[in-house]
Amino acid sequence: MRLAAYRKNGQSRIGVVENGSLRDLGAFPRDSVEFGRLADEVAAGTLRPGAAVDGVREPAIPAAPDARIICIGLNYAEHAREGGREPPDYPAFFFRIDTSLAPNGARVPVPEVSDKLDYEAELLIVIGRGGRMIPEDKALEHVFGYGVFNDISLRDYQRKGGQWTPGKNFDGTGIVGDEIVTPDEVPSGATGLGVRAILNGKTMQDANTDDMIFTVARSIAIVSEFMTLRPGDLIATGTPSGVGYARTPPVWMKPGDEIVVEVDRVGRISSVIG
Amino acid sequence: MRLAAYRKNGQSRIGVVENGSLRDLGAFPRDSVEFGRLADEVAAGTLRPGAAVDGVREPAIPAAPDARIICIGLNYAEHAREGGREPPDYPAFFFRIDTSLAPNGARVPVPEVSDKLDYEAELLIVIGRGGRMIPEDKALEHVFGYGVFNDISLRDYQRKGGQWTPGKNFDGTGIVGDEIVTPDEVPSGATGLGVRAILNGKTMQDANTDDMIFTVARSIAIVSEFMTLRPGDLIATGTPSGVGYARTPPVWMKPGDEIVVEVDRVGRISSVIG
Repeated sequence: MRLAAYRKNGQSRIGVVENGSLRDLGAFPRDSVEFGRLADEVAAGTLRPGAAVDGVREPAIPAAPDARIICIGLNYAEHAREGGREPPDYPAFFFRIDTSLAPNGARVPVPEVSDKLDYEAELLIVIGRGGRMIPEDKALEHVFGYGVFNDISLRDYQRKGGQWTPGKNFDGTGIVGDEIVTPDEVPSGATGLGVRAILNGKTMQDANTDDMIFTVARSIAIVSEFMTLRPGDLIATGTPSGVGYARTPPVWMKPGDEIVVEVDRVGRISSVIG
Repeated sequence: MRLAAYRKNGQSRIGVVENGSLRDLGAFPRDSVEFGRLADEVAAGTLRPGAAVDGVREPAIPAAPDARIICIGLNYAEHAREGGREPPDYPAFFFRIDTSLAPNGARVPVPEVSDKLDYEAELLIVIGRGGRMIPEDKALEHVFGYGVFNDISLRDYQRKGGQWTPGKNFDGTGIVGDEIVTPDEVPSGATGLGVRAILNGKTMQDANTDDMIFTVARSIAIVSEFMTLRPGDLIATGTPSGVGYARTPPVWMKPGDEIVVEVDRVGRISSVIG
């Protein structure tokens, strides 16, 4: 099943994509409790799609206001190496806050204080069932679905203080795909999926989720060691090699550039800079 | 003016402390918009306290659900040096999420996976007026008030992946004082205030906000370079030297320990471990 978050009359709603058209399912969950109910309905197969949504769809961020966005920094060995690091034995975690996110299709603002804008193609995990100390061998039961994420980073601010938080949290720089596919649409644990970033038509990142150091199940298990996950939380699984800063010469995104991120069988998102 | 967040009948409320007794002001703001209205009323002097609150006060976290908690990692030169670092020229920022917070008086859970529990006494800034690219010389106009914070950290998880996020976000480890004092209660910019941590009656940290590398005004200015601040956002201003991990031998908090944090003229919070 493919779900999509969209905006209508100023409200975030959710629908199901069937044969290329979107059928409404109601208001997007307002919190993790409502998100959990949606997840239960999807699991039970009791969703009742309403009317087809007419006209051009305005993509929304598929996150309730209380969702947390947990990001993994280094999860592909080649990407760690291109940044001069050894592949880690524990992820580099950081959070993104709500103001740092924007939906598929949104223009990405170039900050006044930095022009070191870099793309990062990522698979996104959407949590359906919460928990703490989730064992790795049960972790996939907590997945609601998968999405696409572009973790656009301001590289100078990412490094200024040693902690990456500022460079990862400029307003409107985390592009969240509006579509979520349920786990039955992809191989177990979202393995074997191509992950690509395409800048102005040129493929810049091209890897496979099989190359992730921390699998989907392992990532959920590790996150739930320190925090209680809730339905609707998002985990961004890190980006492969090929980012702009590690190129010679470095590639920074400029106003007018189009950046596309795609994950096989999950989706494709596109943004224009500036 | 001294305000206090408290719980009654399962609801977060806010009141004003007058002559040692609490008078109710209504439900705690549910979001940044409502928090902004409260800030306007405080500024205009139009608050109308209601009835005195009877009985034992149950402290609440003075944060709306959409508040962000922005933490500064290294803001006292001596604390940077005790960790083997030079005083930084840009703060080490990280976020805390809602599940990592607990109110004054809450028991601090010892995680299953770590016993490296360390205290961190801090002054907390509460934002009253939001903004982006706030100039340093206007930043104090954006302060609603000040509070007390204990940024309890799991030191092994803080270092595991290079990014401090996991060690700073274990459930219920960030102790937020329930009381907020408005800026007229302290010197401009909350300068000249003693900041102390007291473990089982022994003073472990004893410093002064005058020693902060990044002042209150400068911290607000720097944060607003990367994110749009909203009314009700909290900025934890970092801890001075004397933390447990840097002692010989290291001091870790154990079940039954009482940890107190106090900031002169702002408040005092207390928690028991385990």
